[in-house]
Amino acid sequence: MGMASDTVAIAPDILQDFAAALLLAGGFTSDQSEQTAAMLVWANLRGADSHGVLRIPRYVEMVELGLINPAAQPRRVGGKGAVALIDAQRAPGAVGMNIAARTASDLADSHGIGWCAVRSISHAGAIGYYAHQVARARKIAIVMTASKPLMIYHGSRAEGVSTNPISIAAPGSNPDRPLLLDMSTAAVALGKIMAARDADQSIPAGWAVDANGQETIDPHKAKAVLPMAGPKGAGLSLMIEVLTSVLATNPLIAVALTAGGDPGVNGVVVALDPTAFGEGFTPEIDRLCAAIKSLPPADGLGDVYLPGERGFEEMERRSRSGIPLVRGTLSRLVTLAAKLQVPVPEGLA
Amino acid sequence: MGMASDTVAIAPDILQDFAAALLLAGGFTSDQSEQTAAMLVWANLRGADSHGVLRIPRYVEMVELGLINPAAQPRRVGGKGAVALIDAQRAPGAVGMNIAARTASDLADSHGIGWCAVRSISHAGAIGYYAHQVARARKIAIVMTASKPLMIYHGSRAEGVSTNPISIAAPGSNPDRPLLLDMSTAAVALGKIMAARDADQSIPAGWAVDANGQETIDPHKAKAVLPMAGPKGAGLSLMIEVLTSVLATNPLIAVALTAGGDPGVNGVVVALDPTAFGEGFTPEIDRLCAAIKSLPPADGLGDVYLPGERGFEEMERRSRSGIPLVRGTLSRLVTLAAKLQVPVPEGLA
Repeated sequence: MGMASDTVAIAPDILQDFAAALLLAGGFTSDQSEQTAAMLVWANLRGADSHGVLRIPRYVEMVELGLINPAAQPRRVGGKGAVALIDAQRAPGAVGMNIAARTASDLADSHGIGWCAVRSISHAGAIGYYAHQVARARKIAIVMTASKPLMIYHGSRAEGVSTNPISIAAPGSNPDRPLLLDMSTAAVALGKIMAARDADQSIPAGWAVDANGQETIDPHKAKAVLPMAGPKGAGLSLMIEVLTSVLATNPLIAVALTAGGDPGVNGVVVALDPTAFGEGFTPEIDRLCAAIKSLPPADGLGDVYLPGERGFEEMERRSRSGIPLVRGTLSRLVTLAAKLQVPVPEGLA
Repeated sequence: MGMASDTVAIAPDILQDFAAALLLAGGFTSDQSEQTAAMLVWANLRGADSHGVLRIPRYVEMVELGLINPAAQPRRVGGKGAVALIDAQRAPGAVGMNIAARTASDLADSHGIGWCAVRSISHAGAIGYYAHQVARARKIAIVMTASKPLMIYHGSRAEGVSTNPISIAAPGSNPDRPLLLDMSTAAVALGKIMAARDADQSIPAGWAVDANGQETIDPHKAKAVLPMAGPKGAGLSLMIEVLTSVLATNPLIAVALTAGGDPGVNGVVVALDPTAFGEGFTPEIDRLCAAIKSLPPADGLGDVYLPGERGFEEMERRSRSGIPLVRGTLSRLVTLAAKLQVPVPEGLA
């Protein structure tokens, strides 16, 4: 069924099965396909289409290029006490990050906090997904990932840091709808520029520069994004590289800027058990949310939103009425399905 | 000696002794005075005058108002494993944060990571100071503090969150000069508006709103600051309140927005031991710094700076040539000294 002339709506479970079938045919194992498809469709459900199933063609290409290793056997290679280091051996990002989320949560049960670094994964996708899993286990989550230079470093005309995202989640009395911050350190997520390309729409000024380092509003010419808040976004991204890559003994930025090469992506999941500090955390989160929701809206706005709230509202809407895929994304998935001989769900072909 | 007509330069050790004498006469204990003066002068040395000795008159006033308790006996009230909770009983901020920094560092020695929350402190000042101490112990530091609503919440016309800062430090081979990010979640630190008041200079658009919620460039009319990068700054600040205040069982935002009252300030220091993850951290930080410093500067700029680097350069300059105090700040310190019968150092009277 069409929601608008340029989109086609698809039921979440059908999209997830289609996504998993594409990944399986593209070389992922069955388990890797299921974990990755669940993360991608979670992003689509929340309206973060830039981190959804549009990534699948690239993921399949990365298997062909050897950048994702379906035979990976992630294993623990370091850590002590409340910290652990996992080498993911280039497993799909969702697989490595899910292991990190479980490990951090288990460590937090014993030590009050768990810090699990995972090195050598592929693209982790929407990292709020992993924070959400930890929050469902009634713990606070901090999730960060780091990748190669993709963003202008403040004061330079070159890409010196990545758009490294950070997500922080805290559960109230409904652990399915925690406070859920999920932000990149860029003025905009790179995926939003990719989505603008697919939709063939221009982008706002201040988002990106072209190959000459000049600002551009053409998503097809965008070469690198600018940092959020200038030196703050660039500095925070650099420190995420330290906390996520250098600490995990798989540096990305220094390697890319000097020796060259592509050592993949690294991630970290931190879990905190609120009960280790005292009582009353859950009702206090509810009280905080209610207080913020009661703030007077700015002139012309109808509502004040909590971190992650718009995504949860969109998730409810799309769970009922389907996920609207733009034709550019859909056509690439259908082309891939034909190549991999995967059946296309009815109504999408 | 005068550096410019509107400033007077003072040697750091003389300023630190003067600051400690003022705080002691204002009711701090000797130890509290020394710890606080060291933090304030560290900020002045780095050029962060907004977080330096100009705060002293307010600190003394807070003792008179009962908002700082010189008789406080900070003690551990919660935690397990790698996490600890200290109740500072309204001790001066620097005292509580120094305890948190030592505790987190000690916990990291045993568990790889230490997370020490400290509740009910007063204004913590320049939180990079505490991150710097942890980095000197060759550990990574993450430091956050939370206070009452001082900043517009994105989407609202009201102050719904604080300007909560975060500092992250990582030591290279020179632990005196680590990578040192220190940023507030506001478009600008509130202290910079205070400094503009003292210097009687206008502020840029986009920094603050007046009592009617309209943007202003008059620091005397500035009532609330705007968040960094809109929803990102507001959301990050709210999550720092969760990580710092709600987790430490001393919520500030919900209390201020509903019941009212002023439960003080909370802080957290996280320390990570890089050796718990693997080898080679220190040289890798050096390599990362060198790679960033080698990036080509943007058109018109002479140099690319690392997080904290400008502050360390200013620290070297001011250690040699003195700390330039603007006359507004100096005159308030001299007035306070007269009131408290504290001798004013030669050349400042």
